[in-house]
Amino acid sequence: MKYPIITIGRQHGSGGRTVAEQVAKALDIPLYDKLLIQLIAKESGFAEEYVKDTDMRKIQSFFYGMYIDSRNLPLEDQLYIAQSKVIKEVSEKGPCVIVGRCADYVLRERNDVLNVFIHAPLDQRIERVRDTYHEIEKDYTKYLKKLDKQRSNYYNHYTGRKWGTSDNYDLVYSTDLGVESVVKSIVYFAKGE
Amino acid sequence: MKYPIITIGRQHGSGGRTVAEQVAKALDIPLYDKLLIQLIAKESGFAEEYVKDTDMRKIQSFFYGMYIDSRNLPLEDQLYIAQSKVIKEVSEKGPCVIVGRCADYVLRERNDVLNVFIHAPLDQRIERVRDTYHEIEKDYTKYLKKLDKQRSNYYNHYTGRKWGTSDNYDLVYSTDLGVESVVKSIVYFAKGE
Repeated sequence: MKYPIITIGRQHGSGGRTVAEQVAKALDIPLYDKLLIQLIAKESGFAEEYVKDTDMRKIQSFFYGMYIDSRNLPLEDQLYIAQSKVIKEVSEKGPCVIVGRCADYVLRERNDVLNVFIHAPLDQRIERVRDTYHEIEKDYTKYLKKLDKQRSNYYNHYTGRKWGTSDNYDLVYSTDLGVESVVKSIVYFAKGE
Repeated sequence: MKYPIITIGRQHGSGGRTVAEQVAKALDIPLYDKLLIQLIAKESGFAEEYVKDTDMRKIQSFFYGMYIDSRNLPLEDQLYIAQSKVIKEVSEKGPCVIVGRCADYVLRERNDVLNVFIHAPLDQRIERVRDTYHEIEKDYTKYLKKLDKQRSNYYNHYTGRKWGTSDNYDLVYSTDLGVESVVKSIVYFAKGE
């Protein structure tokens, strides 16, 4: 396999998680999504529930210089450090798919990583969030814009890059093209045949 | 063909033009790149040389309200209007590949357009510009950053979108993955089989 490590960033409601699942299945390699959360919780000592939504919370760490060691860092930063460690460890074990969590940035020094970003038109995201994920919101547009903003702030804060900017990714797809086709295409590039 | 119209935006030196040529060839449909310049020159009355580098010049039109009709608009704006007209006309004639010129935005109301963006790592862009295009520059990094900035300003000014942002495109590729593979993938999605 030309790119044994595949990172998948995604907009909420884009179907990116489904794409990641199917890519992992097609290549018969582990998927680190929920499993990653468990490992990060174990590494950091935080509850899984806290680890789960880390990239959807407001960043509150502005006082790096004031802290002496990582135990004194803001919780978010401790979590980021633990999660980066886990991402590096799992990627060293062998081929895998990693969802979100700035994995593209954490693994930036490896040259065998395929970085993918998945998005979708807003109306399709709303439909997916409402009808498939059964999330109940008053204003879905506002809700998704807010999540995009939070995920973007999180990514930009920890990486110094811009979330969703084409240059960061080898491949970007709109799932409007069809989840199945997108999966096939990622598998094609990962195999590099 | 599921997407008979393919627009290709690209960074200078990314190989996007070569990708466009090969996609057009593989699908046996016209490529509007140099041909588009000739048609825009004819439509606008400007010299081909002036039309050619329009997206690499500084935007100077800030006084829309002051002009009464399009003949009195700044030259850049007259050119943008002429070019949008030509893009719409050629896309109505049948399947084709259109390179750059905000074609994704101009054709935004059609739902049979595949919008693609091509980029590449900086070192590969420098190599291509220097060794393949034989462009002579003192500082290639500065040169390419400047071109990105100008192309981005042009696109953002006329479209209200952000050049190179994933959301604008159905597909984004780094040619680091190999031009041939990228071409194959675009053809696959355009056919929609």
